[in-house]
Amino acid sequence: MAAMTATPELDQTDRTTLRRLAARGTFDRAAANAILDEAYLAHVAFVVDGEPRVLPMTYGRDGEDLYLHGAVGNAMLRASAGVEVCVTVTLLDGLVLARSAFHHSMNYRCVVLLGVAERVEDEERKRRALDVIVDHVVPGRSAVARPTTPAELRKTSVLRLPIQEGSAKVRAGGAIDDEDDLGLPVWAGCVPLRLVPDTPVPNDDLVAGLAAPPAPELFAR
Amino acid sequence: MAAMTATPELDQTDRTTLRRLAARGTFDRAAANAILDEAYLAHVAFVVDGEPRVLPMTYGRDGEDLYLHGAVGNAMLRASAGVEVCVTVTLLDGLVLARSAFHHSMNYRCVVLLGVAERVEDEERKRRALDVIVDHVVPGRSAVARPTTPAELRKTSVLRLPIQEGSAKVRAGGAIDDEDDLGLPVWAGCVPLRLVPDTPVPNDDLVAGLAAPPAPELFAR
Repeated sequence: MAAMTATPELDQTDRTTLRRLAARGTFDRAAANAILDEAYLAHVAFVVDGEPRVLPMTYGRDGEDLYLHGAVGNAMLRASAGVEVCVTVTLLDGLVLARSAFHHSMNYRCVVLLGVAERVEDEERKRRALDVIVDHVVPGRSAVARPTTPAELRKTSVLRLPIQEGSAKVRAGGAIDDEDDLGLPVWAGCVPLRLVPDTPVPNDDLVAGLAAPPAPELFAR
Repeated sequence: MAAMTATPELDQTDRTTLRRLAARGTFDRAAANAILDEAYLAHVAFVVDGEPRVLPMTYGRDGEDLYLHGAVGNAMLRASAGVEVCVTVTLLDGLVLARSAFHHSMNYRCVVLLGVAERVEDEERKRRALDVIVDHVVPGRSAVARPTTPAELRKTSVLRLPIQEGSAKVRAGGAIDDEDDLGLPVWAGCVPLRLVPDTPVPNDDLVAGLAAPPAPELFAR
């Protein structure tokens, strides 16, 4: 069961204590949630026969729960139910060009969550989780689309990971060059990167006269 | 040692055989390379005490080798040297809105590589790997930036993963709805997404009169 009240901080454990550039890290739940809500894809790692695997997946956040889903036959979801996973969500914000090759970097915002992903069996909760995943892509979309049928629900596995043990890490700003290099005639700075939508491409089997939802609704990031 | 001649296909093994929607997969090396060359970040998974971890990393490709790097103290790189890793590189190409909640999807291109990452000890090879990683961000940048010093080289770990066992997977196009849903008055289609650069932000400690490299050079994707 999820805690009745969310802690304002994620759990800082031995596993989540940041060892590199710890000043860039935070355990603030609101900061982590903001990253989770902006990104579209998670990279989900799990262990198969002692070996690591990581696959991109869509997801949705419902308060302090993160939901993943896939076909019932999905080997990854089978491997992950009730076992340890690591879910990492990364937003790339820019390229950082330094005067020295050594200090080149990227600006990013990243959340790493650890924990045991449990299969959601309760039908109503499963249906709600799938709505959360669809609404994560386009807010409000689950109210517009044809709802999930009981048969579709049976074909789908849903996993819940509590958003509890983890951390966020952020790099922002320009290059941090060595003092000795500041006089070099090499441009340094940041090239900000942004994910933008292009004009929607309608399916060619649409019924006549349907317009695409307006851009702000389709891409509310 | 890397093979003297690259196989045109990645190795299809028990571990890399695609089990879900195999028609979207390919073992074509050129297809995988194109994805690796376009993306900026890899998600690198490794096992620590039997548990999965996955972190975002920059990387570079040199022929059939993928290079990762980090500080010598980096726990992940220590854990990964000479052990199994899974490196996944994902490009998000669009949101796929279907008439049914069930058939919502994403368009993406993804490469999953498996193998043993080995530490690069040879100094010249290490230096070349670091140049490859910098040039992956901005082509030609390693020739412009102040070169890596021997001291910097000692502070940096470089890992090499042969691009040999793995696969690529691609989803493109519009929604694939059930026949029964095609008449529903719900818009369906794809919202293409694209990563674009904003105006470069110069460091405020630059020497006077330096202009940023032109946009096509900074963002050659």
